[in-house]
Amino acid sequence: MATAEFWYEFASTYSYPAAMRVAELAGSHGVALAWRPFLLGPIFAAQGWRDSPFNIYPAKGRYMWRDIKRICDALGLPLIRPDPFPQNSLLAARVALALEGEQRANFSRRVYATEFGEGLPIAERALIAVLLAKLGLDPERVFGLAESDANKALLKAENARAAELGIIGAPCLVTGDGEVFWGNDRLEQGLDWAAGKGA
Amino acid sequence: MATAEFWYEFASTYSYPAAMRVAELAGSHGVALAWRPFLLGPIFAAQGWRDSPFNIYPAKGRYMWRDIKRICDALGLPLIRPDPFPQNSLLAARVALALEGEQRANFSRRVYATEFGEGLPIAERALIAVLLAKLGLDPERVFGLAESDANKALLKAENARAAELGIIGAPCLVTGDGEVFWGNDRLEQGLDWAAGKGA
Repeated sequence: MATAEFWYEFASTYSYPAAMRVAELAGSHGVALAWRPFLLGPIFAAQGWRDSPFNIYPAKGRYMWRDIKRICDALGLPLIRPDPFPQNSLLAARVALALEGEQRANFSRRVYATEFGEGLPIAERALIAVLLAKLGLDPERVFGLAESDANKALLKAENARAAELGIIGAPCLVTGDGEVFWGNDRLEQGLDWAAGKGA
Repeated sequence: MATAEFWYEFASTYSYPAAMRVAELAGSHGVALAWRPFLLGPIFAAQGWRDSPFNIYPAKGRYMWRDIKRICDALGLPLIRPDPFPQNSLLAARVALALEGEQRANFSRRVYATEFGEGLPIAERALIAVLLAKLGLDPERVFGLAESDANKALLKAENARAAELGIIGAPCLVTGDGEVFWGNDRLEQGLDWAAGKGA
């Protein structure tokens, strides 16, 4: 079966619509999807940015917020801007990485729906705990796994891998042959490629 | 009839495939298109950039060149990187603005095909003269119009208008109600909006 990786960052606006639609889209392409949470912070820092480029460049930020609103409207997704933006996504990323398979995907979709659909601060531990409980998981047990040295090291390794792949933003669809497709608007193209129809 | 504006910069890689396909696409959407050449330099300068972001941020540049190659391959367009990149596009923009209607569109497509399809230096006056001659135009007469004070002032006004519209990159499709769609990959969405199907 064809495979692809979905690389996403919880603070990323465009990762929100992508996360909400990528599983179904991959299924319809016959592509098995691996969910790979990572942090854009280190990648942005390597470009000299200490904040979201949407904050550093206000005109770019204004465009993005209008653009993401149109995208969410077209998909029937609610959009409420979290405050502050971007949210600190470290805990959410560690938790997602500590979960596996469908649990990771389900948790990730819930984080995005809470953060950008409801505008709630996913940087807060108590909120992540509520999301975990809703999935039938024991928050304290999951936090223990998420904040273990092994899982922290794994997230660092994932970030290094993202940089190595040439990932410069989120979301990205990465195919088995190393092609990187950046953006919610490139999911279809990336999945076509993964399915062998895009070369 | 529905209308839309196609804002493009001759130095912009993504404007190349967009310019080669936008006329047919607008036609199939029933949208009358105005071609509006402008310069990204002043817009980038307002963000503190003195060069293409694809040069300032090498990882972004590597991604873009791979991405544009995939796009051109899918469209059957040749791609050769001009040297240096980006090309100085001032003369081409002035000439395009001095032409009207189909002549402007035809000249613009020829510039892109020469620059990115053949990798030739469109910054050079002699090359622009050849392109004008191929269109049956008198290069010296057109250069006279292009470099008149009135036309230079018009290009400055167009750049100011682009900034006012919130344009932050090229190409952009701008609809009658002021919606800006940035990117070759947003032409369809912008034309759907212009045709009243995208709200």
